[in-house]
Amino acid sequence: MNQRHQEQLDSALKAALASEMKQLYFVACGGSMALFLPSQYMIDRETNIPSFVYTANEFVHRRPKALGPGSVVILCSHSGTTPETVNAAKVARAQGALAIAFSNVEGSPLWEAAEYGLHYDWGPEAAAEELNQAILAKLIFGIIQGKEPDEKFDRAIAAISKLGEVFADNKAKYAVVARTFGSAYKREPLIYAMGSGSCYGPTYAFAACLLQEMQWIHSGAIHTGEFFHGPFEITDYDVPFVLVKGIDETRPLDERAEAFLHRFSDRVVTIDAAEFDWTGIDEDLQKYFAHLVVGVVFRQFADELAEHRGHPLSVRRYMWKMEY
Amino acid sequence: MNQRHQEQLDSALKAALASEMKQLYFVACGGSMALFLPSQYMIDRETNIPSFVYTANEFVHRRPKALGPGSVVILCSHSGTTPETVNAAKVARAQGALAIAFSNVEGSPLWEAAEYGLHYDWGPEAAAEELNQAILAKLIFGIIQGKEPDEKFDRAIAAISKLGEVFADNKAKYAVVARTFGSAYKREPLIYAMGSGSCYGPTYAFAACLLQEMQWIHSGAIHTGEFFHGPFEITDYDVPFVLVKGIDETRPLDERAEAFLHRFSDRVVTIDAAEFDWTGIDEDLQKYFAHLVVGVVFRQFADELAEHRGHPLSVRRYMWKMEY
Repeated sequence: MNQRHQEQLDSALKAALASEMKQLYFVACGGSMALFLPSQYMIDRETNIPSFVYTANEFVHRRPKALGPGSVVILCSHSGTTPETVNAAKVARAQGALAIAFSNVEGSPLWEAAEYGLHYDWGPEAAAEELNQAILAKLIFGIIQGKEPDEKFDRAIAAISKLGEVFADNKAKYAVVARTFGSAYKREPLIYAMGSGSCYGPTYAFAACLLQEMQWIHSGAIHTGEFFHGPFEITDYDVPFVLVKGIDETRPLDERAEAFLHRFSDRVVTIDAAEFDWTGIDEDLQKYFAHLVVGVVFRQFADELAEHRGHPLSVRRYMWKMEY
Repeated sequence: MNQRHQEQLDSALKAALASEMKQLYFVACGGSMALFLPSQYMIDRETNIPSFVYTANEFVHRRPKALGPGSVVILCSHSGTTPETVNAAKVARAQGALAIAFSNVEGSPLWEAAEYGLHYDWGPEAAAEELNQAILAKLIFGIIQGKEPDEKFDRAIAAISKLGEVFADNKAKYAVVARTFGSAYKREPLIYAMGSGSCYGPTYAFAACLLQEMQWIHSGAIHTGEFFHGPFEITDYDVPFVLVKGIDETRPLDERAEAFLHRFSDRVVTIDAAEFDWTGIDEDLQKYFAHLVVGVVFRQFADELAEHRGHPLSVRRYMWKMEY
């Protein structure tokens, strides 16, 4: 990690660990919010800190009573201009909480509203370990390590430098699968996305950002545990699902959903984190990074869908075009 | 409330308040889980208790590290046989937590697995204040009152006896709206549901249970705060939305979504809790009950959809028909 990012991370982590950390609130919108869902899973599994994920405007208006001195609020907005997230940072600080913000733009309104800023790089040229998700992972492992020391979290932090290769290896591995998906699903008006545990985050992002937002394809994220308690009745031979099988503790939920889907739908694509190329990552750490690789594969699926549909992922009809 | 229900409630509430209540976990599946989302909103707004809603199998496998002595786990299964929820109660107790379970069936596996059981009545003949949602409301108000005493929560508990009339008044008020909805939307292959705050629970239940499960209509619940950060790009003149405008703190989110939808879709139906007939409920308490009335109106919408489509709400193709 470059020195500037490392220094920003060190300062934010030090401040977080110095605070009481009575609660940890993760606050953002859309894809940035989805980024935090796996963090919440890890904090929930590995520490006693109560942690919550809110879409920013729900956080601003709901304003949890417990928010106050001793609370830590972690925010993210790529441009740093998302008004709801900027407001959330202001609300957090007004209540006496510590606010730490991720943004691609130093000096942005979010950056200014928070006490600690964490800049990250972006785009195809960026090194994997300078991306928001990598820096966030270091922050989360650092928090866990501070509360529940374990040598494996040192190894986890070190493993982040390997992510670039892991991403590239799995992009290569999934190139044909993604191309086939793009071609075979390009005429679908609706595609459901399913997952659980630490992989529910990228599943939600695939449904809400890649399909609904960037492809104008109807979608909804279905939790594989909830599936059997309502949604599964819409399953039919021609209803398409993309299912993630994670490798953390909730994998049995995904396996059960997969077994059902294979019986009753002919349109199921599975992304199985157990089949990823994990070269360079210790086996006991792979579960902490699966959601990131799932995100890379989902992006590849969306790229191919966009290509086959002639609908670039950059197209919008409302966003950036009007006030709303 | 009848004496048996009152005694069960008193015992469970006393045990909850006697515990440390370090965390409050709400655990169930599908419609029962949705029932708990407004409770979590209220606990979050009115107390400092960290509270969480999990679908039961996620809870079982994720097993939050903080779960233990001093935790309170509130569960619900109508039949009391939902295996994931029964397991969740067992996990909770094995970890030393206090488990309180709602069920329509005393002596059911869930009932036996929990320390405290809360029976409720069900069906068209049941008095409103003997329903699960009414008894749950009393439990939640009791917990809040125990932690943050305020005379309004005594009034809130007393107001629950008025719910039967409020439900009936609003069913009458929405009869024509619901019939028109059923007729006008009966050929839609997909209907989105939108809401926020304490009304996100019934919104989720409408999408997952009433539309997907009971009508085999594609759906997804979209949080009105998240809408502008992805999903709104699927809005078009012919894309149908049912939007809830709540009357709690997050109403501005719903208003913003409504304004956008009216510009770009011709297929929008709004359920506005501010227009409900609130006779008998003090104005400052109405926000605590809006989600319940929204649930009644949603049910009426589904009844009419079922009627116009000739697809009874009781029909299933997988549930009750096979092992899965």
